[in-house]
Formats: sequence, C-alpha cells, structure tokens
Amino acid sequence: MAVDSKERVLVLNVSPAVDCGRFPIKRVSGDRVTVEADLIADGHDVVRGRLRWRKMPRGPWNDAPLVPLANDRYSGEFEVGSPGVYEYVVEGYIDGFASWRQRFDKKRELNQDLPRELAHCAQLVGDRRSLYKKRRGLPRTLVGDLSRLDEIQALLASPADVSESAAVAASDELMALMDRVPGPRFAGKSAALRVQVDRVRALTGAWYEFFPRSCPGRSGDYGTLKECETFLNYVADLGFDVVYLPPIHPIGTQHRKGANNRISAGPDDPGSPWAIGSGAGGHTAIDPHLGTLDDFDHFHHRVRDLGMELAMDVTLQCSPDHPWVQEHPSWFSHFPDGSIQYAENPPKKYEDVYPLNFETEDWAALWEGLWKVILFWAERGVRIFRVDNPHTKPIPFWEWLIARTQAQYPDAIFLSEAFTRPKLMYALSKAGFSQSYTYFAWRNSPGDLRTYLMELTGTEVKEFFRPNFWPNTPDILADYLQTGKPAAFAIRFVLAATLAASYGIYGPAFELLEHVPIAPGSEEYDHSEKYEVRTWDLHQTPNIQDLIRKVNRIRHHETALQNNSSLVFHQIDNPQLLVYSKRGPEPSSALLMVVNMDQTFTQAGWTALDLQALGLPPEGAYWVHDLLTDVRYHWSGPYNYVELHPQGYNAHIFRIETEEGI
Amino acid sequence: MAVDSKERVLVLNVSPAVDCGRFPIKRVSGDRVTVEADLIADGHDVVRGRLRWRKMPRGPWNDAPLVPLANDRYSGEFEVGSPGVYEYVVEGYIDGFASWRQRFDKKRELNQDLPRELAHCAQLVGDRRSLYKKRRGLPRTLVGDLSRLDEIQALLASPADVSESAAVAASDELMALMDRVPGPRFAGKSAALRVQVDRVRALTGAWYEFFPRSCPGRSGDYGTLKECETFLNYVADLGFDVVYLPPIHPIGTQHRKGANNRISAGPDDPGSPWAIGSGAGGHTAIDPHLGTLDDFDHFHHRVRDLGMELAMDVTLQCSPDHPWVQEHPSWFSHFPDGSIQYAENPPKKYEDVYPLNFETEDWAALWEGLWKVILFWAERGVRIFRVDNPHTKPIPFWEWLIARTQAQYPDAIFLSEAFTRPKLMYALSKAGFSQSYTYFAWRNSPGDLRTYLMELTGTEVKEFFRPNFWPNTPDILADYLQTGKPAAFAIRFVLAATLAASYGIYGPAFELLEHVPIAPGSEEYDHSEKYEVRTWDLHQTPNIQDLIRKVNRIRHHETALQNNSSLVFHQIDNPQLLVYSKRGPEPSSALLMVVNMDQTFTQAGWTALDLQALGLPPEGAYWVHDLLTDVRYHWSGPYNYVELHPQGYNAHIFRIETEEGI
Repeated sequence: MAVDSKERVLVLNVSPAVDCGRFPIKRVSGDRVTVEADLIADGHDVVRGRLRWRKMPRGPWNDAPLVPLANDRYSGEFEVGSPGVYEYVVEGYIDGFASWRQRFDKKRELNQDLPRELAHCAQLVGDRRSLYKKRRGLPRTLVGDLSRLDEIQALLASPADVSESAAVAASDELMALMDRVPGPRFAGKSAALRVQVDRVRALTGAWYEFFPRSCPGRSGDYGTLKECETFLNYVADLGFDVVYLPPIHPIGTQHRKGANNRISAGPDDPGSPWAIGSGAGGHTAIDPHLGTLDDFDHFHHRVRDLGMELAMDVTLQCSPDHPWVQEHPSWFSHFPDGSIQYAENPPKKYEDVYPLNFETEDWAALWEGLWKVILFWAERGVRIFRVDNPHTKPIPFWEWLIARTQAQYPDAIFLSEAFTRPKLMYALSKAGFSQSYTYFAWRNSPGDLRTYLMELTGTEVKEFFRPNFWPNTPDILADYLQTGKPAAFAIRFVLAATLAASYGIYGPAFELLEHVPIAPGSEEYDHSEKYEVRTWDLHQTPNIQDLIRKVNRIRHHETALQNNSSLVFHQIDNPQLLVYSKRGPEPSSALLMVVNMDQTFTQAGWTALDLQALGLPPEGAYWVHDLLTDVRYHWSGPYNYVELHPQGYNAHIFRIETEEGI
Repeated sequence: MAVDSKERVLVLNVSPAVDCGRFPIKRVSGDRVTVEADLIADGHDVVRGRLRWRKMPRGPWNDAPLVPLANDRYSGEFEVGSPGVYEYVVEGYIDGFASWRQRFDKKRELNQDLPRELAHCAQLVGDRRSLYKKRRGLPRTLVGDLSRLDEIQALLASPADVSESAAVAASDELMALMDRVPGPRFAGKSAALRVQVDRVRALTGAWYEFFPRSCPGRSGDYGTLKECETFLNYVADLGFDVVYLPPIHPIGTQHRKGANNRISAGPDDPGSPWAIGSGAGGHTAIDPHLGTLDDFDHFHHRVRDLGMELAMDVTLQCSPDHPWVQEHPSWFSHFPDGSIQYAENPPKKYEDVYPLNFETEDWAALWEGLWKVILFWAERGVRIFRVDNPHTKPIPFWEWLIARTQAQYPDAIFLSEAFTRPKLMYALSKAGFSQSYTYFAWRNSPGDLRTYLMELTGTEVKEFFRPNFWPNTPDILADYLQTGKPAAFAIRFVLAATLAASYGIYGPAFELLEHVPIAPGSEEYDHSEKYEVRTWDLHQTPNIQDLIRKVNRIRHHETALQNNSSLVFHQIDNPQLLVYSKRGPEPSSALLMVVNMDQTFTQAGWTALDLQALGLPPEGAYWVHDLLTDVRYHWSGPYNYVELHPQGYNAHIFRIETEEGI
C-alpha cells in the first residue's frame, strides 16, 4: 500500500446496497432514497458526512448532509428524477471548526484561555477562507459568505472585547457560515453505488393478457389484430393499464403441436405461438394470420388511445422453420450427426422448439442478433417487454441486453417470466429486470402469504425485486381456482390486486371463471389457448367483471395500492382471515384490506389493528369506508368485528376516515 | 458494458468476508478456512465450483472442490500455513459432461437414442481431450489420464456393443477422469478475498504486565531491568506466556505528574512512563534509570530463555522534552502563539503530553518516523507490540503500519489497547490489529457476559476481532474487585482465562488482591504505579497465585482453552451460575466450566447441558473431572447438581471423561 490513504474517517456498511454494490438498487421517478452508513473516525473530534449523488454518466454532483443516528451511524436522503442510472457516494470527514467549538463551549463556561482560543478561532476561519481565495467563478451567495468570514476573522484576530468576540465565535451565524463554506480534509468515502430509476409503470400497473387469435367476444376462426381492436374497449373498461399479448410472430409447421399439446397437429391446428418462426419470418415479423406490421401499429395506437400500454412478448427460441436456423446454424447446438438439437427432458422431446446455444463460439453475434429484435420493436414504440423463461439464458446476457436497451430507451420496462429457484429469480431481478413473476399462484394460506410478502417487502429483496402477482397464466390454472367457485376467483383477484403494486390476469379465462384442467392434478387448462383458437362469451355468468372494474378504479385513485413497501399485516383471531394495510405518501392515505380466504364458508373475527400503521391515534373512534360496497362502519381502537361471506365480494377494501379526514 | 461477460455462473454472497472484502478475515497457522458462496446459473445444467487460494503475493494457486449445500449454496475449505496474507477466489462453471450424463442416465433407463448419445459422449470426451493436446509439461498423472480418455473416446465413437459402451459412458471411471482433467468454460468468479494468517500466539496466550521500576519482590528504589530478571522466574513459574512492560523509555520532566496524578511533581517523583522522551532520548531509547539497551537485550534474552515472549509498549505521544519536539515541530499541533498544543479536556489540561498531529501537511514524514520506531524494536527481536490508545490515531495509519511491519516480519503481533466506541474498536481490528482489549472488565453479570461473548464468538465479529480479556489494568481497578475478596479476584480470573483464548493481568496488583481506589467510585488505583515506585511483597496472603498457576497449566494442556470459536453456553436454573464449554480440534477435548459469580454466598443449581456440544451421546453416564481440585464426579445426561463456595475456587473446570475416553 502506498502512503496515500490518510483519510480520517472510514465509511463502512453503506445501505441500501445489493451484493456489495455489484448490482443497483431500484427506485421509480420521484422516490426518495434514504442512505445509511457507519462513519468511523479515530478520537473524539466532530464527524460530519455528506451524501453525494448524480445521474450517470455525466450529471452534476449534488450534496445532502448526513445526520447522526446512534452508534456511529448516519443517514441522508435524496430524490431521484427521470429514469436512468444514478450513483451515490457517502463521504465522511472531521469538522475541525465544530471540534474546536465543542472544546470552546466548555472553556467559555469556565472562562479559561479565552484570548488564546479566540486567536485559534481566527486562524481556523482564516484557513477556511483561504481555501477559496484563489478560486474563480464562486456562486454569488458564497461571495457574500466569504466577505462576512473576512470581517469575523478580523474581529477575532484583534478582539476589542473578549466576551463580545467570544459570543461571535460561539454564534450560530459563524457555525452556519463555516458549514456553507465547507473545507473537508482527509475525507473518507465509500465506493460508488448505483440506483436504477424507472418510470412509475415499472412499479405499479394492472396487466391483462389475452390471445388475439381467439379475439374474445367474437366467434369464428383465427382472429386478427384488426378485429381485436373492439375487444380493447372491454379491457380498457375493466380498468387495465397494460395489454400483454403472447407471441404474435409466425408459427412453425415442422413438429407443430396439436390441441391439448398432442405430439402431432392436424391440418387445422394453429400451433403454439411460442414455436416462433416460419417462412413468413421470425422475431421481427407478425403472424400473417393476425395481420401485417401496419395492422400491429394500428392496434398499438388503439391501445395507447385508450390510455393503456402494450407489452410485447420476448421468447428467445425458434421453431425449426425460423429463418435463423438457416442463416445462423452456429447459434444452435448440434447433435453429432449435424442436426440441430431440440429441447428435451427424457422421455419428453420438444421437437417443435430449438433452444439457442449461448455457449456457442459465435456468442457475440448471437447477443447482437437478439438485441436487434428488442431494438426493432423499441423503434416501433414498444416500451414494455415481457420475457419468457429468462432463467434459461445466461444472467450476464440479460444484464447486458437490458442496460443497452435502457441506455437508449430509459423508459423501457422488462418483466421476467421466471418460475424457478428463488436465488435465480432474484439474480435475474438484480441483473436488471424491472419486475418479475412470483410464487404468488402457489401461496394460498394466510400464513404462506404473510411469510412470502414479508420476504418480498420487508427484507433486502425489496431493494431489487418488484413483484407482479398473477393468479393465473396460460400455463398455470392454480389448484385453488379449480373449484370454479366465484369466491375462489374473487379472493385470488383481490389478493393479487391489493397485495402487489403490479398484478395481472390471463383473460377472459380468469374473469369468466375458466377452471377445468386437462387432467386431475394438472395446472394445464383443458383445451388450452396455447394450442387452439377459443371462443369466449363475455356476457357469460357468473363472472367477476364488476369486481375487477371496481378494484382497478380503486387502484387508480388510491396511492396506497401503488407501492409495495408500505405493506403491514395486522392481527386477527380467525386464521382464515387475512388483514393488511398499505399507505401512500400522503398523510390520510391508508387502506385496510380484510380478505376471507375460505371460498366456501362465512368467516368472522375480531381484529387487533396496528393503529399507528393506519395513521390513527392510539385511542378514539373512526370510520372505515368499504370502497367495494360503499358502506361505512364506525370503529374504535384496535379491536373490531368483521364478517365476510363467499356469496359477496368476500373482502373489504376499507379507506380509513377520521372526523377531520372526511 | 462491453460484450465480454459471457460467464454462465454468477458467484455471489461469498462468506466469510469482512465489509465486502475491504478487510481480510483472520486465522492462525493450521486453521481451516471454510468458504461458502451462492453459485447461480441459468437453466438446469450441472453446476460445479472450485475454491482457489494462494499465499500472497506470489504463491502458487491451489484448488479445492466446492460441495453443494442447498438452495444454490456451495461450500469448500482449505488450510492456511505460515503467517502472511492469503487470498481466495470462488469460481463456478457449468459441467457440460455431468449435464450430459444427467440426461443420459434417464435415456439409458428408457433405452432411448443410445447410439446418438454415445456419439455425443465421444464428442464431449474428445473436446475435453483436445484442450490438453498442445500443452507441454503436463503432470505425469495427467498423461496417463489423457491416454485413457483417448481409449474411451475411440470405444464410444465406434461402439461394438451399444449396451457395453453405454456402461463405459455412464461409468464412475469416466466421470472421475473428466473431473481430473477439468475444462471449465464461461466460468464466473468472485472478487479475491483475503485472509490475514498469524502465528498461534496472536490467538492464544496468557499475558503478565508489570512495572519494572517497582521490580516486584525486592524493596528499595527505582528498580532496573537487570534486577527484574529474578522476578521473571516468578512470572514464568505462574505459567505466563507473554511479559508486557509499560513504556520503558526516558520520562519527561516538564510538567511531570506527581504521585496520585498530582499536577506538579516533587523532586523524587519518577513521573509517568507514558510521558515519553527526555534529553536521554525518545521512543528508541531506554529510561536510563532502568538501564541501557544492552540491559534491555539481556532482559529480553532471559524472557525467551524462560519460554516466554516480550511485548513492547507503543505509545505514540511525547513529553515536552522528547527530541522530536525540537527535530520535528511540524509533527505537532500549535497554538496561535506558536507553542505546541498539549492534550486537554476542559477543564483538565495534560501539559506533560503532546499528541502527534496526524493532520499535519508533513504526515508522510510522520508516518515514516513512527514506522522507524517499530522497525527499531523489531530489528532487536521484538515481535509483540501492545499499542496504547490506537483509537486516537487514524485507522488508515494503523492499516499501513501493521501491513508494512508484517510484510517484513510476518510473525509480528499487535494488540490494540482501545477502550472506546464499539464500531471504532472493531474498525481497528479490521484494519490489522491481531488482537484487542475488550469491555470484559465491565461485564460482570452472567447475562451481560453471555450477550457479550455471543457477539464476539457467534457473529461476524469472530472473523476479524480476537479478544484479550483483562480483569484489571493499571488504568482499571474494576468496581467488582474493590471488595478485595479473594473470591472476586478468583472469579474474574477464571472467567478471563477460560472464556477468552488470550487474557492478561496487571500484577502483582492482581494476584495480591490490590483493591483500594483513589476515591470512591473511581477505577484508578490509589498510589498507582503509573506515578510512583511501589514495593510488592510476593509472599503476602491472601493471594491467588496457586489458582493462577493451576489455570495456566490447564490452558497449556487443554486445546479447548486455546480458541474462542468453540464457546457454547449451557443452561442452569440458578442465575448466579455461569456454565459454558469449549472444545479443541480433537474428539474428546471438551472442557466444561461452571463459575459462581457471587463473591459472597454459596450457590447451587441443576444444569441442563447441551450434551452434543460436549461430544456426549444423548443418554448415559460419564465422569466430569475437576482439573482444579482433581476430584471426579459421576454424572448422567443433561441434568446434574453443582454447588460452589466462595471459600474455595468458586469455579469448576471439568474435563469430560467417558468410559472409553479414560
């Protein structure tokens, strides 16, 4: 080590930080970032610290002071603006003037050594002043401060009246001046840490997935994007923010799968949209049955006109008919006989799908080629990408692809569709995915949900992982829904839409209570839309369209439901009831949810509410206003009675209303 | 980011690591370092990892395999040798052959695609083989392995009998060959982490501090080092490992302190040894009253001849008479009138001591000058340095000084005498101090001791902080000892010597039960040796010499007491009794300590022992052998009766003896 590390203050244990700063933390525009650090200095001098931050790569540095907490720990905060990557650094230094002042205050009380101390003070003021003597372009405010420091120095250097000068030396004015004209020496600093700032839609939104070829609400053959524009009105009326379409690219014919995933397709089977690529093109083409690129653009405009956004599917695999198979054989693995290796999991063979080989010698060209797919759709205005099975491609590839996309399109959002090992799901988020699918579909008991949500919102996971809760997907007809009871769908819907800031449903299967699996014990839908065109009657009953419409309206008005970090679980004496609350940034924004997780029986119980979490005083009465039924109840203190019936909504979404608040 | 991060495996969350690798972990020669890491790969291929380590700066790299634990976490270990700095790195990679084998095992059972899979296997073997084709200087064993791989490849490429060849492909032999001839591609690796390896004395030893000018056992004037050589026999007979002398340098006369720290000294007052420097020299000179440098060398030889080691004091401050005051005025702070700033804490002034100014512009010369002091004594053979108040000098200075010393003298040991804020004490250890004083002197209840010891031995603190427990020092006559009861001293002694691998006493004050403070409520000794020469009668009774001799002998024989990491607390139904055990590396090395922390009354209780921690089966009888009294008790299971009297040793140190073990 060279003799050059003379800093007085060690800056350690900076939080938040993900894997020692290897990955950025995540925030959305307008968030405040609260940073803590240990500032450890020798001796007993006064330690000061500052938090410095800037937008990368070349924004100006900004400063915020750190305030001491306890046990050598300090805290500061800053607000992030437009999407992009920010960096922050914590600095610590000894404040020589404040240290002198600490001693001087004691001596002034004792009337000890005052002339000497005043001379010392004059020296410290002069030293600080001289740091700025030769600088040009000082801010105007600083010019005034410096000339005032000159005056004070002169006064202290030859004090006419010792006690009067002592009062100036110990004045708040001088301390404030010295603070405004800082002169940190031998400062220690942390490594730079990063914040990935996204637009708000990365954190919160309601998603709706549908197969355009079924073109719900219309009965007939293979639907087109043009025909689906009418259906978009339905989706918008239900209050959704994001429309997500499964792959809309040309579908391969070799080894095409038949209905219900049969090995061989009949002549009329449309094939799986995930077997991407045919003579009509690959990842940058539109399935000719759905329409043209112009049709796509028209559809996309219609989505935006209705106040929604389109999420594009990104499934990085190919059918045997994909143009890349001929153009880039080196992007695939090969059997020893030279044929391309299809996916398999013995005894099963997936011969309609060729995985890409990320261990190819030609990997750099492969990465470039895949990036060009994203670029193609981004140039057409797509800003949300829902990535299929990202966990079967290298994590550093995603880190590169997402960073490269966001450097050009800072408003791009990537959703990870990974259902895999927990640390791999988290690693994908760390590497850059804006949000992620979760284990929500398999968390059905109040205890399991509480444990899982505390992991997501109460541990360091919250710094990098944004959940998107889906009660169903085309691959997941959750066991809990297979009863087909409206209450089952209502319960799972309310949980998804109020526990997580982002959620989504695969419809119309969901709101029409589709619930028959292909076989007992399976999570596959019978007659899955993955392999056939379906007809949906949107007026079918029972359905939960009314509930969805109401909850999405509440989500738009109530900031409490637009974040994950404020989630608090409350106690109740009935284990079938789940009680939790969330708050927005405003004072009276708390919502209290009560969900009966029993889809068959009425359940009742007495709450034991954490009133502080609800912004309520420890005693007194208040109203809870059920935003689903518009009924108000007069409650008091933590203990209150609730009762929910599977025949109703089976859930309360209460707004807390105090006498003043109404 | 450039397109160059194509690794398949992310290596995250490597432990142990101190502050993300900013500081090394600590071990002693012969220790095993167990390393864990998350290896996170996309997909479902077989992940392998290896731990690589070497002695810095230029030792050869060594490899150890990682074994999977659960949830993507892996573990490996290595043993450290001679003192110095080691580094370790964790690597993770996809094992293509093992991944193929995983699929092949299923296909072999199904008798599916075997010819194709054998051809694939031949290709994998050939690829691995070709990695080594052009290399020279292969180890002899590898040459044999490679030619066997050639044979196998030939066999698989043109299989005479498919099922016979399949058996070869799936053989343990082939898997082992492929493991021995590794070919990791696209490996991910962690940042390099460091281990500071010290000799065993850095971890464990019994220290004895005394003032040579009092020359205990002799009555008279200012003692000399020569006269003290006789006293060394006494210290060695008590079983101590390290002799520590307070500063033995010339003492300043300006503003010299009198007896009991009086502001002004009388003509016969010898002054405080910590006011270092006079016309006779500074930090590299010997107090002329104590003798010459030759006398020092002779004394030092005598210490070593008795099987002990000398610890030199390092107090980096100066009396006004220190040669540096004239030679290096820039190393000190100055009042505005040009006079040197003494230490002060208003209203107190410490005019006999000038602190060094580490914020001087001349800091590089100051650091060099202080390093030369260490070098001077290291060249005379000193290898243990006990540093006074290191927390009033910059932490990076110590990091530099200790690293520089240990680069030249890897067996150098530094003890930090810091009693300050917890994070500052820990930061000094992180920066390089081999061991540290602690809060032990103020932890007197069983609960406080348990909490503190769990922090030291059961959290990440154990990776960098080695405690040295002192029941007293010349500055600390602990309140608990001021009763003067032999039991008080015996209790604190047994706790220090059996809870911590390193401990020390300031004698003969300690073993002779010196207990009168200068004032009620003070921890200062009356007539402290810091300011006057004392006379000690080593035959005075009561004393605890016999206990000390016994415990030090036990410490030498029992490896259980030579580490901190094995400490386990056991339950007992009497809160005045503290029960704990330790184990050495050998199977039957457990010791069980029971201490009555009541210095006045007999206490008894029933234990609830953690039998597994003692290496005992869940049921059955065993003997506990009190090594202090040589009495054996026949015990059974976890629940056993103990009773301790303040009139005896007030503690048990039991060796656990099973029928087989005796």
